[in-house]
Amino acid sequence: MSQSPGDGAEADPLASWNDGRAKTAIVDFVARVTKAGGLDYVVPEKRIATFDNDGTLWVEQPYPSQIAFALDRVRAMAPQHPEWQGKEPFKSVLAGDVKSIFGGGLRALIEIVIATHSGMTTDEFEAEARAWIATTRHPKTNKLFTEMVFQPMLELLAYLRTNGFKTFIVSGGGIEFMRTFAELTYGVPPEQVIGSSGKLKFEIRDGEPVLTKLLEIDLIDDNVEKPAAIQKHIGRRPIAAFGNSDGDLEMLQWTTAGKGARFAMLVHHTDAAREWAYDRNAGIAKLDRAIDEANAKGWTVVDMKNDWRRVFP
Amino acid sequence: MSQSPGDGAEADPLASWNDGRAKTAIVDFVARVTKAGGLDYVVPEKRIATFDNDGTLWVEQPYPSQIAFALDRVRAMAPQHPEWQGKEPFKSVLAGDVKSIFGGGLRALIEIVIATHSGMTTDEFEAEARAWIATTRHPKTNKLFTEMVFQPMLELLAYLRTNGFKTFIVSGGGIEFMRTFAELTYGVPPEQVIGSSGKLKFEIRDGEPVLTKLLEIDLIDDNVEKPAAIQKHIGRRPIAAFGNSDGDLEMLQWTTAGKGARFAMLVHHTDAAREWAYDRNAGIAKLDRAIDEANAKGWTVVDMKNDWRRVFP
Repeated sequence: MSQSPGDGAEADPLASWNDGRAKTAIVDFVARVTKAGGLDYVVPEKRIATFDNDGTLWVEQPYPSQIAFALDRVRAMAPQHPEWQGKEPFKSVLAGDVKSIFGGGLRALIEIVIATHSGMTTDEFEAEARAWIATTRHPKTNKLFTEMVFQPMLELLAYLRTNGFKTFIVSGGGIEFMRTFAELTYGVPPEQVIGSSGKLKFEIRDGEPVLTKLLEIDLIDDNVEKPAAIQKHIGRRPIAAFGNSDGDLEMLQWTTAGKGARFAMLVHHTDAAREWAYDRNAGIAKLDRAIDEANAKGWTVVDMKNDWRRVFP
Repeated sequence: MSQSPGDGAEADPLASWNDGRAKTAIVDFVARVTKAGGLDYVVPEKRIATFDNDGTLWVEQPYPSQIAFALDRVRAMAPQHPEWQGKEPFKSVLAGDVKSIFGGGLRALIEIVIATHSGMTTDEFEAEARAWIATTRHPKTNKLFTEMVFQPMLELLAYLRTNGFKTFIVSGGGIEFMRTFAELTYGVPPEQVIGSSGKLKFEIRDGEPVLTKLLEIDLIDDNVEKPAAIQKHIGRRPIAAFGNSDGDLEMLQWTTAGKGARFAMLVHHTDAAREWAYDRNAGIAKLDRAIDEANAKGWTVVDMKNDWRRVFP
């Protein structure tokens, strides 16, 4: 935490949060689990917090940035795939027909992601993704994608870590894609990023061991798979979980069903002026059953428009 | 590091290692990668070290302790499985016929492990495994299994961590079994334990979310799967890796093929008096191709008999 020189008071670590129920709930929870000798005290090694990524830590509209990356990869890889010229959904991508691409639904998008995220080594993929994320701009705002992150959530991540939490990302996004920026952007190292993945094949190629990314899906890290992935990777139940859509519901259920103090939060996108406003009819980003359960169970729901003083850094 | 009071000198953090090539190689490597401004300097967040478990951190003879656990579980679960009375390999287990069990080879052992590690929730399994590991004794020495760990390796884990390394276990052993003791015994928290696993199913049971352990195998974390599992869980190539059998070879190849200073080590069991002596003909614990490659490439091979002053704590 930084300190204003001379005044003796610490700066507010959650300065981009307006005073209100959401901020109070966060601060109260952290105070309870960190108060030595208190009833709700949690030892530091059990202070596990998990965060969804798309729509929770950064913008996911008009479509998740990994989709933008995959579409760019279709164009870059097209010379090696002449068959794509006559085959959907690739044909629509190459024709720049965005409406048809998204008309194909989640199935078409997954097909595009898999095709563009396999057939190379993990090192090759990482180099491509790093170059893309360092230079590509959001279609609406013309900012870098890594500038389209939510300042209040960056403060929350740092605030939790300052209070002894270990912060993890648990997202439907591709694990290797997210790892190319999560450390620099969020302060979350690769080993604390959990996401969707394909199978890997180890082989010795020209005397060098490589891991090749296969077409076969290993995990779609969403819904019921989020608690399972948390158990696999972390092996401990989180005490706090943060999401924004129905895909996060099971993670929040799993987190809050543990013993002792628990915290669950949903980011509700209510700010059409500064970001986007969407919920029950948002397709893959739908927030419907989860907000009903949040209201029924008293989980914290962030009203972006009113709870966030600032949205972007 | 502890200090002897009064003498002003630091105690040797590797006191159970005899002076010799292995100890010197470890200390030299750590000095190179931690020397700020040095050619081989590695920033702390990239100081990833991976350790096999069975035969590397603790005893794996006459058979891995997880097999002992599984055999005990067959006996405990037999009343719920009347069909086991007439079905191999369970029939031999219930008859106490150890020779026949191991005569069935790895396939029979895996069948026993899967059958005894599924059909319950993760919380139920953890409770059973914790109770077992806290009370069960090694068949030859009558010590607790967690006392059959290698003191020089405990010192090595601590020494690396003192020097800014993050230590991971990457083992063919069951991930949830190992996590019940790895933190207390090795100082390795659950999220840094990688191992074999079955599929998990999230469901709401009597209003409570649970993760049920299924019969289906998700990963056998051995051989070529070790580098793949490292990529999945850690997302960074280790700079140091430690094993003892051919199942660790690909992990050592993957580790040493990265750029910059790298360290690979094999524990060679050469001490029939204090532990066991075995290598090329040791069945599932075979050390054959890996020791040839270690010798060819100059990896460090620990001669347990001569390099270790003490074997157990």
